[in-house]
Amino acid sequence: MLYYGADYYPEHWPEARWPTDARLMQEAGFNLVRLGEFAWSRLEPAPGRYDFDWLDRAIDLLAAHGMRVVLGTPTASPPPWLMAQHPEAFLVREDGLRATYGHRRCYCPSSPDYREHTAAIVGALARHYGAHPHVVAWQIDNEFGSRCYCERCRRRFHEWLRARYGTLDALNEAWGTVFWSQVYTDWDEIPVPVATGGVANPGLALDYRRFMSDLYVEYQALQIQELRRHSQGQLITHNLMGFGYEGLNYYDLARPLDLVSWDNYPRGFWATAQQVDPAAPALSHDAMRGLKSASFWVMEEQSGPSGWETMGATPRPGEVRLWAYQALAHGADAIVYFRWRTCRFGAEQLWHGILDHDGRPRRRYKEVKQMGQELARLAPALAGTSVRAEVALIHCYDSRFAFQVQPGNPAFSYAGHALDLYRALHRRNVAADVMAPTADLSRYRLVLAPALHVVAPEVAENLERYVHQGGTLLLTARSGVKTVTNTVVDLPLPGLLAPLVGAEVEEYDSLPAGATQPVALAGPLAGRPAGQATVWCEALEPRGAEVVATFASGWLAGRPAATRHRYGAGQAVYLGTCGDAPLLQALVGWLLDEAAVRPALAAPEGVEATLRQAGGRQLLFLLNHAEEPREVALDGAYHELIRDRPARGTLRLEARGVAILQKA
Amino acid sequence: MLYYGADYYPEHWPEARWPTDARLMQEAGFNLVRLGEFAWSRLEPAPGRYDFDWLDRAIDLLAAHGMRVVLGTPTASPPPWLMAQHPEAFLVREDGLRATYGHRRCYCPSSPDYREHTAAIVGALARHYGAHPHVVAWQIDNEFGSRCYCERCRRRFHEWLRARYGTLDALNEAWGTVFWSQVYTDWDEIPVPVATGGVANPGLALDYRRFMSDLYVEYQALQIQELRRHSQGQLITHNLMGFGYEGLNYYDLARPLDLVSWDNYPRGFWATAQQVDPAAPALSHDAMRGLKSASFWVMEEQSGPSGWETMGATPRPGEVRLWAYQALAHGADAIVYFRWRTCRFGAEQLWHGILDHDGRPRRRYKEVKQMGQELARLAPALAGTSVRAEVALIHCYDSRFAFQVQPGNPAFSYAGHALDLYRALHRRNVAADVMAPTADLSRYRLVLAPALHVVAPEVAENLERYVHQGGTLLLTARSGVKTVTNTVVDLPLPGLLAPLVGAEVEEYDSLPAGATQPVALAGPLAGRPAGQATVWCEALEPRGAEVVATFASGWLAGRPAATRHRYGAGQAVYLGTCGDAPLLQALVGWLLDEAAVRPALAAPEGVEATLRQAGGRQLLFLLNHAEEPREVALDGAYHELIRDRPARGTLRLEARGVAILQKA
Amino acid sequence: MLYYGADYYPEHWPEARWPTDARLMQEAGFNLVRLGEFAWSRLEPAPGRYDFDWLDRAIDLLAAHGMRVVLGTPTASPPPWLMAQHPEAFLVREDGLRATYGHRRCYCPSSPDYREHTAAIVGALARHYGAHPHVVAWQIDNEFGSRCYCERCRRRFHEWLRARYGTLDALNEAWGTVFWSQVYTDWDEIPVPVATGGVANPGLALDYRRFMSDLYVEYQALQIQELRRHSQGQLITHNLMGFGYEGLNYYDLARPLDLVSWDNYPRGFWATAQQVDPAAPALSHDAMRGLKSASFWVMEEQSGPSGWETMGATPRPGEVRLWAYQALAHGADAIVYFRWRTCRFGAEQLWHGILDHDGRPRRRYKEVKQMGQELARLAPALAGTSVRAEVALIHCYDSRFAFQVQPGNPAFSYAGHALDLYRALHRRNVAADVMAPTADLSRYRLVLAPALHVVAPEVAENLERYVHQGGTLLLTARSGVKTVTNTVVDLPLPGLLAPLVGAEVEEYDSLPAGATQPVALAGPLAGRPAGQATVWCEALEPRGAEVVATFASGWLAGRPAATRHRYGAGQAVYLGTCGDAPLLQALVGWLLDEAAVRPALAAPEGVEATLRQAGGRQLLFLLNHAEEPREVALDGAYHELIRDRPARGTLRLEARGVAILQKA
Repeated sequence: MLYYGADYYPEHWPEARWPTDARLMQEAGFNLVRLGEFAWSRLEPAPGRYDFDWLDRAIDLLAAHGMRVVLGTPTASPPPWLMAQHPEAFLVREDGLRATYGHRRCYCPSSPDYREHTAAIVGALARHYGAHPHVVAWQIDNEFGSRCYCERCRRRFHEWLRARYGTLDALNEAWGTVFWSQVYTDWDEIPVPVATGGVANPGLALDYRRFMSDLYVEYQALQIQELRRHSQGQLITHNLMGFGYEGLNYYDLARPLDLVSWDNYPRGFWATAQQVDPAAPALSHDAMRGLKSASFWVMEEQSGPSGWETMGATPRPGEVRLWAYQALAHGADAIVYFRWRTCRFGAEQLWHGILDHDGRPRRRYKEVKQMGQELARLAPALAGTSVRAEVALIHCYDSRFAFQVQPGNPAFSYAGHALDLYRALHRRNVAADVMAPTADLSRYRLVLAPALHVVAPEVAENLERYVHQGGTLLLTARSGVKTVTNTVVDLPLPGLLAPLVGAEVEEYDSLPAGATQPVALAGPLAGRPAGQATVWCEALEPRGAEVVATFASGWLAGRPAATRHRYGAGQAVYLGTCGDAPLLQALVGWLLDEAAVRPALAAPEGVEATLRQAGGRQLLFLLNHAEEPREVALDGAYHELIRDRPARGTLRLEARGVAILQKA
Repeated sequence: MLYYGADYYPEHWPEARWPTDARLMQEAGFNLVRLGEFAWSRLEPAPGRYDFDWLDRAIDLLAAHGMRVVLGTPTASPPPWLMAQHPEAFLVREDGLRATYGHRRCYCPSSPDYREHTAAIVGALARHYGAHPHVVAWQIDNEFGSRCYCERCRRRFHEWLRARYGTLDALNEAWGTVFWSQVYTDWDEIPVPVATGGVANPGLALDYRRFMSDLYVEYQALQIQELRRHSQGQLITHNLMGFGYEGLNYYDLARPLDLVSWDNYPRGFWATAQQVDPAAPALSHDAMRGLKSASFWVMEEQSGPSGWETMGATPRPGEVRLWAYQALAHGADAIVYFRWRTCRFGAEQLWHGILDHDGRPRRRYKEVKQMGQELARLAPALAGTSVRAEVALIHCYDSRFAFQVQPGNPAFSYAGHALDLYRALHRRNVAADVMAPTADLSRYRLVLAPALHVVAPEVAENLERYVHQGGTLLLTARSGVKTVTNTVVDLPLPGLLAPLVGAEVEEYDSLPAGATQPVALAGPLAGRPAGQATVWCEALEPRGAEVVATFASGWLAGRPAATRHRYGAGQAVYLGTCGDAPLLQALVGWLLDEAAVRPALAAPEGVEATLRQAGGRQLLFLLNHAEEPREVALDGAYHELIRDRPARGTLRLEARGVAILQKA
Repeated sequence: MLYYGADYYPEHWPEARWPTDARLMQEAGFNLVRLGEFAWSRLEPAPGRYDFDWLDRAIDLLAAHGMRVVLGTPTASPPPWLMAQHPEAFLVREDGLRATYGHRRCYCPSSPDYREHTAAIVGALARHYGAHPHVVAWQIDNEFGSRCYCERCRRRFHEWLRARYGTLDALNEAWGTVFWSQVYTDWDEIPVPVATGGVANPGLALDYRRFMSDLYVEYQALQIQELRRHSQGQLITHNLMGFGYEGLNYYDLARPLDLVSWDNYPRGFWATAQQVDPAAPALSHDAMRGLKSASFWVMEEQSGPSGWETMGATPRPGEVRLWAYQALAHGADAIVYFRWRTCRFGAEQLWHGILDHDGRPRRRYKEVKQMGQELARLAPALAGTSVRAEVALIHCYDSRFAFQVQPGNPAFSYAGHALDLYRALHRRNVAADVMAPTADLSRYRLVLAPALHVVAPEVAENLERYVHQGGTLLLTARSGVKTVTNTVVDLPLPGLLAPLVGAEVEEYDSLPAGATQPVALAGPLAGRPAGQATVWCEALEPRGAEVVATFASGWLAGRPAATRHRYGAGQAVYLGTCGDAPLLQALVGWLLDEAAVRPALAAPEGVEATLRQAGGRQLLFLLNHAEEPREVALDGAYHELIRDRPARGTLRLEARGVAILQKA
């Protein structure tokens, strides 16, 4: 089932307007709306007094226009009466000050009072709608996040630590509290990493991130339990925030859900870049697909300029449709635009929907409608297809949390470095799955593991097994540095990975802001255009590996910058820097050759090509992200599904144009 | 009466020095000093124990040297004993922390204790000096501002809201609290927009600014009441902070005062620009004159380099005199320099006066004295004259408060945009009044209304009436977006102004930092040198208007960027962007031609020309802000009053020189 | 005795590793280790229960390998149990929030509880180790600093003020509290300069810095008392932070110590510059030597890349050795590297030692070992030698504290300006002592006194005496502005120094960021290459002095920028600006000529030359800070001690190479 629709807040508009909205939605080809999110004040206007009538009427009206419903639980935004009754349900911020009323996401996820009210409203909703024929799915809360540092969370943290470490001796040993004399002699002495505490012990800081992630998983579980108890075959999801968000371990959060959905804003919000980087939403799609290795939904797809106090640029003509097709091209099975109509009040007045505040359909509506009409034709062809990749990118939340604690270099960004590696694939139209470091990698020809900082023994074993059985693995700088308790390994770097890498890091240098260092390619890479080392320079010492790049100048001139180690039936390549785009292009290009990975299609810059497949059937998506038309040379005879006509030889894509090709 | 003098703090200096100061002041031609401001510790050294003897002696001495006195009430700076007795009288800052002792303006304006002490000291002063023959005016407090967020203010805010909205239903409807589930069911649930509350509801945030402004008006009223009760014909004023300050609604604050005074620092303080922009103090003068549509005083005129921890550049030779003449040229009837002598201690050691810390007259004193001698001659000619303008600039505090809440674009500044428009007038030596949007505009040929974001129905009617009766009106981007409760209108933009504008905003785009977009002029504007769109690009759709500018490149190329709509006997021009200086120069130049507005005099760049008039008599001020001499072509035969000699043909102005011409 | 070693934390490593460490240290030529710092948790695992066994074993093992021990008292980092028992022992931060557990230096130095625990642990250590044959010195705490703003400190501040001023009247007069109505009528009303109090009275702000400095001196005295009571001839020191740190008055802190030691990180930490400025550690060495006019120790010498959340660049090949030799060249008698082995856990995982986390000796160890072998040979020659200078640089903490309160110009940095002046000496290889303004200056030919802002009468007399007796003195902008209570003098500037300077500051101008003003040299300076005025421009009025420089353009063109005044048998030069490098080079070069000061050796740029002397014996250190080899022309026949061979004519120094020459 291919879903297409929008996030709709009928409670924000006069009921007299609803029929107009429903008609416009139907004309746009919608078959899904998300309702109810943030509506707690309307659903439970006073403690224990529920009012679902308005929502019943809205659902009935929309159903009459052909739409199914995702119901949001309203817990991201408690009503004033609730927080006035329970001031201790407010979270405490990292600066140590308790939040006060005024914004969303102000609650502490450990609050028993908040949980009690959560269970009540979610239970009531589930009882009322759990068997509703038009409610097909639930979205729990909205965009979980926001760490709390309250005294109750501190006590919960102690419980969590007890369960993890058993004894204080084990904890002190694991964290290395002997440093700076922080040996805890009572569980109750253990602090939370609030700002007034200064630079925290890295083990404590990493564990607090894990604990807080687990706490949200636990809070989500409470809602899942209420929903499952009363619902009949309805899907349960939560709307995540893509690859860019790093507050929670999304693998853990996704596990108990039926499906992953996420919120996609390619033009971003408030501070706007001049250019959209199409690799960024592509990576997020792949990362969200990878959470459950399954198709996913886009629960909020950008449909207008966005922001709170300030707003970013408006989507350019064609972009709203292009981004939606890009989502499909990466495995989405639902496109839900945020939001139907721009709200006239509240903090998101500048967060635009398909319709402007005045509710009149304009350019963005026309694009959405055009796509809706196209999808009606495309749905049968898309049905059952999904994305398959031969390359995996490793996404490690432990490493990411550890880098939050200690970036090491001010210019280092785990997400940025991963995106840089991903972009080298994306520019070649090579599909990738984004996988946890413990995932079964045996089905991939190539695995890229950016800055795998924290390495558990089972992760090292997993990678060794993968390579030994014939895989090709790329590791980059600052890998293997940390144990799972965020101490540095008692081994030459890259630590547990050194035997696999066949080389050791002899020295490392943290580069000043903006500094780079030219790299010369060698051995099998010789002759390829080279690039620059960035952020980190690690001088490697081969222990069985061959040198494939060296530093070309500076005080490390001539020292190995990258190595390749044949290991079992496979090979492990280690790059001792982050690397600029040319360097990563050269390296990844070579690895794709080595691993015999082929792109969906070779296409000019700006044109993204992906495949959705089912059985032997392949759909080739061509997406022109450029502001100008592009000519794409096809590798055979196709049928273009959107315009329903044959395509062969050279295909012209308009600026921000899309084509979907099926082998003729 | 033309007043000339300085702010003097005799309590800061040994009494033995006072006669020297009085003599130097008299020699400088002073006839006014401000005393008493910030002197609470000396006036009431212990609770209820008053000591006015020293002040009596100071006034007697100064009076004997020909000076009248403005007495400041000392409430901007409570003595330690007061705040130690009443710790709850400290304001709570926006970050939620309560202020502590150490600085001025630390009190909460709603504190009953503080008000009681205020009434006592002001009453005592008024009883003592209310009939004093040499005390001609009172200045209340000093530079009101500083919002408080304490619990008591929160309760006062609830009362204010009750009075405004009557019912919670009305308030919830007005603010749109249904968004994010913030429907209030008890007045006591309503928060203040303290930082711990996150991004606040825009309706609440705007109302809190209004409430806090009203609270200061109320606090001021308490002092006015005490002063009026005991004073005999003395004027009451408060020293405002010009156009640059935006914490309070100055129209409301000025209403109950007898006259407006303000504090003018053309070179600014701490962070110093290389160049002074003479349009900035000019706009502030006109804005302060506009508050009561009357002449005003400069209560603090910069006389030296200024700052607290750091200081700005020192006034260049001639500037102290030039700025004082500029104030007169814009309608000031009093120049009071801040301050007589630079304080040797306290937080304003670097805020220099006419004399340096050592009390010796140097360059700045000489300039002040020169001007004092000139004024003695000029006073009769200036008497009774005032500024009259044919152009008005609309200054809307509701819009300005709304932009504080949501600037929309990070580069947008309401004050900056208004100054940009004003500068286009100033460079042409066209006088302007700065008026509230509800003011009677019928006497103006041209009205410029920058970014009129919040538009009440009566404002739309006022502008329609003005244009209908023959006026020319310029509106710019982001006008008509908001209702008075800071929600977005349920109408095509510019909302209530759309019928007057004869066009609608079809799309809008928020530009990234530094980005601009070339604009092509068309129709009646064709042929004029064009400029660039900045900050916002609005693509317009004419509904009766003609297109006078289009976007010249980019994705909006060819779309209308500005329109002109003939409406009744007048015309409304809408500019769908902020605009750089060339674009605004072209537009305003055309509008001045259209409206047949003539400058005071055409003069070379850097030379400002203004008129003061009385009956048929005109005084033409020429002010050379340039660092080099300038030649000005006169339009007839004049008498130059400063040097008392005839002037015709070409007049040479020295660098930073001034001339005052009377038609011969 | 020349000490060489490292900071070692045996408690961080398995005891089985200790013998390996001891052997590697011995092989590196170590004869000293610092132990015990930050080990409170291990030394007193529970209240009153001491465990020194592990430390005994560590000392015995190290002693068996030839090492002596500096024992650190562990008070910089209290164990959790202590702070859990005494939450009021946490300091209150400048923002008004109380610190919480998690970092070092979290205690309030006025806490009686903390002092009681301090006395107990220090006393216990002193009793146990006070007569230990291998413990040669104590280091108290670590890097004192961190101002507290708690209520108890506020009361202690009141006591301190009572002792200083006697009466409130005297205090009010001294601070000028009449400004802004802050006249205190009860000691208890006096606040501390916490951020919620806003911009504080400068007198209060300066006194609070003095008080807090005294409080640390007092807290240190408590430890000294405990150590002296039980120790036998062991030296007592504290590790200071060089010239760059400005929180405490280091003259006061050093007075009761037996010797000064400090922590030297030439490459800095976290944010790393591309280049090391060798003048910066040179100035710090000289400043630390000047605290007691005696040789000093480097207690932490950088041995690897450093930082907490991020880290700086790694020392380049040769730098670890070069910096250590530079320390010796400036009078150090001990080099103790921080740290032996990089810690695997805790907040300083990225603060690297000689060995990396894995404990394997690599490049940095080899350099350290090379130097250790060299020192074994050099020690006899170095014995008894010390640095003697003919030039003094005045370092005034009162001025420095006053500039913290009011920098005056945002670009002004007292430390930066002093370093600029010092660099002009350093580039010419002229040695300097860094002395307090009250020091006996009679032995110096030239004294440079940068920005001597606060001038006590005895300081003015000291400088007058020095010049009168034949000395040459340079003063720079913003000198003589302040009294000791941080009020501005009631005199023409430079205040009390004006008679000595023979000129007055007629005007001063604070330059905008980045602005400079060309200066023309005149009189005895005419013909030297000139430079630019920076930060401040003071136009001088000679009162007996001759003009040696004028402003060359701008509105001050032609006005005197520097003067020279012959006074008694000497001369005082006043520079009315900060000055760029060329201007300071010209001025200092001339003054060195005037004062007949000769460099250690004229050498090419990048090569530093210093002398250590004893009797008639001279050791000439040549240090090549450049990345390339340098040729140095010798002024006679020498013996080079490191390579043990003769040297004459031209000596080639490798990149970052060192030579030590003794006259043949």
